[in-house]
Amino acid sequence: MSKFKNRLRRAGLSGLALSAFASLSISPAMAGEVSETAYIFNTLSFMIHGFLVMFMAAGFAMLESGLVRSKNVATICLKNVSLYAVAGLMFYVVGYNAMYMGVDGGFMGTFMPWSGDNADALAGNFDGGYTAESDWFFQMVFVATTASIVSGTVAERIKLWPFLVFVAVLAAVIYPITGSWQWGGGWLAEMGFSDFAGSTLVHSVGGWAALSGAIILGARKGKFGADGSVRPIPGSSLPLATLGTFILWLGWFGFNGGSQLALGSAADAIAISTIYINTNIAAVGGVLAAMVLTQLIYKKVDLTMVLNGALAGLVSITAAPDTPTLASAFLIGAVGGVLVVIAVPLLDKLKIDDVVGAVSVHLVAGIWGTLAVPLTNDGATFAGQLTGVAAVGGFVFIASSIVWLVLKFTVGIRVSEEDEMLGSDQAELGLEAYPEFGRGSQTI
Amino acid sequence: MSKFKNRLRRAGLSGLALSAFASLSISPAMAGEVSETAYIFNTLSFMIHGFLVMFMAAGFAMLESGLVRSKNVATICLKNVSLYAVAGLMFYVVGYNAMYMGVDGGFMGTFMPWSGDNADALAGNFDGGYTAESDWFFQMVFVATTASIVSGTVAERIKLWPFLVFVAVLAAVIYPITGSWQWGGGWLAEMGFSDFAGSTLVHSVGGWAALSGAIILGARKGKFGADGSVRPIPGSSLPLATLGTFILWLGWFGFNGGSQLALGSAADAIAISTIYINTNIAAVGGVLAAMVLTQLIYKKVDLTMVLNGALAGLVSITAAPDTPTLASAFLIGAVGGVLVVIAVPLLDKLKIDDVVGAVSVHLVAGIWGTLAVPLTNDGATFAGQLTGVAAVGGFVFIASSIVWLVLKFTVGIRVSEEDEMLGSDQAELGLEAYPEFGRGSQTI
Amino acid sequence: MSKFKNRLRRAGLSGLALSAFASLSISPAMAGEVSETAYIFNTLSFMIHGFLVMFMAAGFAMLESGLVRSKNVATICLKNVSLYAVAGLMFYVVGYNAMYMGVDGGFMGTFMPWSGDNADALAGNFDGGYTAESDWFFQMVFVATTASIVSGTVAERIKLWPFLVFVAVLAAVIYPITGSWQWGGGWLAEMGFSDFAGSTLVHSVGGWAALSGAIILGARKGKFGADGSVRPIPGSSLPLATLGTFILWLGWFGFNGGSQLALGSAADAIAISTIYINTNIAAVGGVLAAMVLTQLIYKKVDLTMVLNGALAGLVSITAAPDTPTLASAFLIGAVGGVLVVIAVPLLDKLKIDDVVGAVSVHLVAGIWGTLAVPLTNDGATFAGQLTGVAAVGGFVFIASSIVWLVLKFTVGIRVSEEDEMLGSDQAELGLEAYPEFGRGSQTI
Repeated sequence: MSKFKNRLRRAGLSGLALSAFASLSISPAMAGEVSETAYIFNTLSFMIHGFLVMFMAAGFAMLESGLVRSKNVATICLKNVSLYAVAGLMFYVVGYNAMYMGVDGGFMGTFMPWSGDNADALAGNFDGGYTAESDWFFQMVFVATTASIVSGTVAERIKLWPFLVFVAVLAAVIYPITGSWQWGGGWLAEMGFSDFAGSTLVHSVGGWAALSGAIILGARKGKFGADGSVRPIPGSSLPLATLGTFILWLGWFGFNGGSQLALGSAADAIAISTIYINTNIAAVGGVLAAMVLTQLIYKKVDLTMVLNGALAGLVSITAAPDTPTLASAFLIGAVGGVLVVIAVPLLDKLKIDDVVGAVSVHLVAGIWGTLAVPLTNDGATFAGQLTGVAAVGGFVFIASSIVWLVLKFTVGIRVSEEDEMLGSDQAELGLEAYPEFGRGSQTI
Repeated sequence: MSKFKNRLRRAGLSGLALSAFASLSISPAMAGEVSETAYIFNTLSFMIHGFLVMFMAAGFAMLESGLVRSKNVATICLKNVSLYAVAGLMFYVVGYNAMYMGVDGGFMGTFMPWSGDNADALAGNFDGGYTAESDWFFQMVFVATTASIVSGTVAERIKLWPFLVFVAVLAAVIYPITGSWQWGGGWLAEMGFSDFAGSTLVHSVGGWAALSGAIILGARKGKFGADGSVRPIPGSSLPLATLGTFILWLGWFGFNGGSQLALGSAADAIAISTIYINTNIAAVGGVLAAMVLTQLIYKKVDLTMVLNGALAGLVSITAAPDTPTLASAFLIGAVGGVLVVIAVPLLDKLKIDDVVGAVSVHLVAGIWGTLAVPLTNDGATFAGQLTGVAAVGGFVFIASSIVWLVLKFTVGIRVSEEDEMLGSDQAELGLEAYPEFGRGSQTI
Repeated sequence: MSKFKNRLRRAGLSGLALSAFASLSISPAMAGEVSETAYIFNTLSFMIHGFLVMFMAAGFAMLESGLVRSKNVATICLKNVSLYAVAGLMFYVVGYNAMYMGVDGGFMGTFMPWSGDNADALAGNFDGGYTAESDWFFQMVFVATTASIVSGTVAERIKLWPFLVFVAVLAAVIYPITGSWQWGGGWLAEMGFSDFAGSTLVHSVGGWAALSGAIILGARKGKFGADGSVRPIPGSSLPLATLGTFILWLGWFGFNGGSQLALGSAADAIAISTIYINTNIAAVGGVLAAMVLTQLIYKKVDLTMVLNGALAGLVSITAAPDTPTLASAFLIGAVGGVLVVIAVPLLDKLKIDDVVGAVSVHLVAGIWGTLAVPLTNDGATFAGQLTGVAAVGGFVFIASSIVWLVLKFTVGIRVSEEDEMLGSDQAELGLEAYPEFGRGSQTI
């Protein structure tokens, strides 16, 4: 049941993707039937691509560990481990069914625990397409990704437990609701919105949640001068940030490739391998655009901007990784890389303190990628894409703001000024990430 | 031949797992026959899941690098690389056959080099199920995991070469013997013991070997005061420890998923995807339990305890990742997380110096996970599980102690007091892990 | 069209590999036909093994980050990200077709952009074997590997942009031309040269390019004294170097395993799993040989030499990972480990400054591995192998030298002496990799 809904995730995509299951008829099976071999291939795709996306949690942990000061590194590590745990648990407890069960063109599903059922397949009928568990696994790691986006933006000043409460609400309610509109077969899907792997449904959702958090939380002490100056606060370990970016790049093959939701036909294999190379070259475009642009503007290439350029390229292609040519995918990613180079200082000007640049990468490039879908996919319209972007953005920004504000005025969300100076690691965890090396607490 | 034995690894498991090969009859093949497609799927499962487990060697290396002081980091890196090499070589030279060949309900196999044979498959008969090489690969990375467990516990004071001699004996003799009792079709398997992927056969074996080593080796200088005080010795890099934990978490999908030993039927696909999500949520349980418990006990969340909580959750579910519901798997992992928070200070009280907490994670949670099997698997009994835990534990602890003691009274196993102060890196390797950063040798 | 050429990559290999497609006739399909299932398996092999090779970019980045001084770490990270981007783009723009299209026994293909075509498969004819995109993906990550080899050798003194221009030429022209001679079905393939996964075509090509760069660029300031003395310049983070080595080891299963170019038959599954275990044990041989040898020579085990020993073992087996027995593969790798221990000080003696030892690992062991093919593969001759090694080496060394020299006498390739002292990170990027820790610029 939930699996059938889930297939709607492909609604509005290209003919190629839509034909994925249909083309199984090439196999020596009766019309409309899925063979056991296709069933295994489909399941295997979810498992392989799912573990790649799961590993993105490590990528975010390293990226963020590298981009915060050493006095906050242990805390950001803890947040990344625990947000993955909380998000996965909540998606089981209510999130999955809220997103996929009984949406029927509406605005949300049924909030109740997920439970899988493979009775049909065990009885020899494989029309469900894949195992319930592999589907759940693949969808679960997506919600964890969404939560990971938030942690980087609000780093270095947010309290641990309130942050996790926010993650719980995000994974249980906010993400599933907007997800249900499209991938659960809700009103956006019926309207013709198109978002193959989640430029909007995952990345922008995380970006909007992060943006509202950054605004409500306020900037780190010392980031913005009273005179309008912006102080750069360099991260503690650029090799870890680089490692994190490479892990995310790797994970994106799973993120976009697995979103084909099937591998049981030659058409699926063609689609996924097309997705792989488009995903890769969009990141290439983001890297090169960020390099050239920072060289032109600043006369030096900025490594952290290049890393964010790669990620922006990846986010940009995520809404439609299956339809562009390699050249188009390169350009879509390159525009993402340009946008991130523009957006980061712009947010600074607005005095919005995004520690790792996640809003620029995931929200700005996510919007761009979603709006760019009609350029390569006839099944999407600019108006439809804009509607989806606005509706999802409006809902997530308002819902997130409410949660942040409730937390702010009850338990509080921000560490004390002394604790911020000392660093979250010593203040909140009572330890240091690098006890023998630099003392992050001595650098403001 | 060895492959048939190897299937006994599944003996005592749920009906679902037992039916894995049988269910191939759903495919259009004759009764009892394995199709070429199933043969490829089974082999592919061993290869994919095997490379994930292989990567756990990197996970252990990073975890341990992050949890030792900087003056011993290069040495622990070297040990992790070389133990993987030694374990893999010894498992080829004698270990595999000692574990799987000619056990026949007994106490060990035949100590002789492994050699593969795929003549049947090349002749068109695929009843062997998978290639000999993929089976060897998957089993080999398990023994490397066992050895990795030991290195963390005895870190910062053991000599390099004697440690590697111990690893060689562990991989060639100790691990294969207890492995043969169950996965090789020996007496434990016939008695009805159940250990799907190795809570006992891998993790407890590593844990017992580590425990005996820690006792015989003694604690690091300065760890325990004469007045009974315990001095915390913080690790040098918590982001590396976090990265290591994430890599291990990723690898565990291979560890448990691949232990289904087949992917050639829909039933196998269902089993493996069930294993994936149970494995994941057990780690989630371990994370959350360790977080909540350390918050309650110490008023601060301890990152290293949370990382060990994740690992303890994973170890706990390893004995039966296929039978629990998600909720049960969560609870099984959570108990593992609780146990590790209790066990770590308990070992300290016993003046047993376990540098990274590996005994608490792999031995304590391993025992728990093994004893918990009957809760979700009707095919196992508490008495049977206890017998297996005790027999394996008794044998490994005694055999390991003998090896450690022989090494101690011949070549010696402990670095000199001056070398321990200076650090193994300078003393044993003549270099430093971080020559430009902190000087680990200056922090006692 | 290009795909058929591409299969020639297997030319000259063992009967087993040659029979890979032929053996599909075991499947219930007409003679000479490839089934849809085999088509999916083949494509999946390219995708899985391709993403493993892609991740080697992260391995090189970490290895090199760990082996340079902290003042040059951010720059080497940037180079590793950007070279992957540039190489992938150029291979699309001209490289792939220059290597695989219209070579016909000759010396190069057609320099024009790649474009895929799966019309046959979509029409139900799967004789192309796999999707065009999966093939391109797998070949693309190989050229990126080649470029990665160069960056380590010329680190700490080369300018960023000229380095990337070199990478562009390497990926667009040099690598494709020598690749076309063999894998594109050119003159070397017709002559009977054998190089299964690229000991020569990838690793030696990278090594020759690196060697010519190191010579033309000159040594780092202070590396070699006027009195003939050699100053060791230790790397900044040995755990990152260890992590990089493990990632490369993991990636090598993809590198060698995927080079079977098919997974659609039992024979392919047997070949790939054989390749996995041979690849692994060759690295084991390299590790153990380097350990024992450095212990004997220097009385201490050198971790960086052991890491390079592992890589040398992997490079050595790459020319023929499918034909040796485990014991032979171990020995082939061990010889590679010995060679690297000898070659590193030898290069120092020649005053060739190879920062990470890449020439010793990739060129020296690459030559050894290529010449060793006839020992285990009857289809290769020593004379044929020597011809390939010499022809590829001569062409790459001369072509690379021309490119380096043109760059040197136009834009310049070396940073100024002051910038070298200050470090590339501050000089070229205006930032620091570890702003809170050690100051690399203070250690000469």
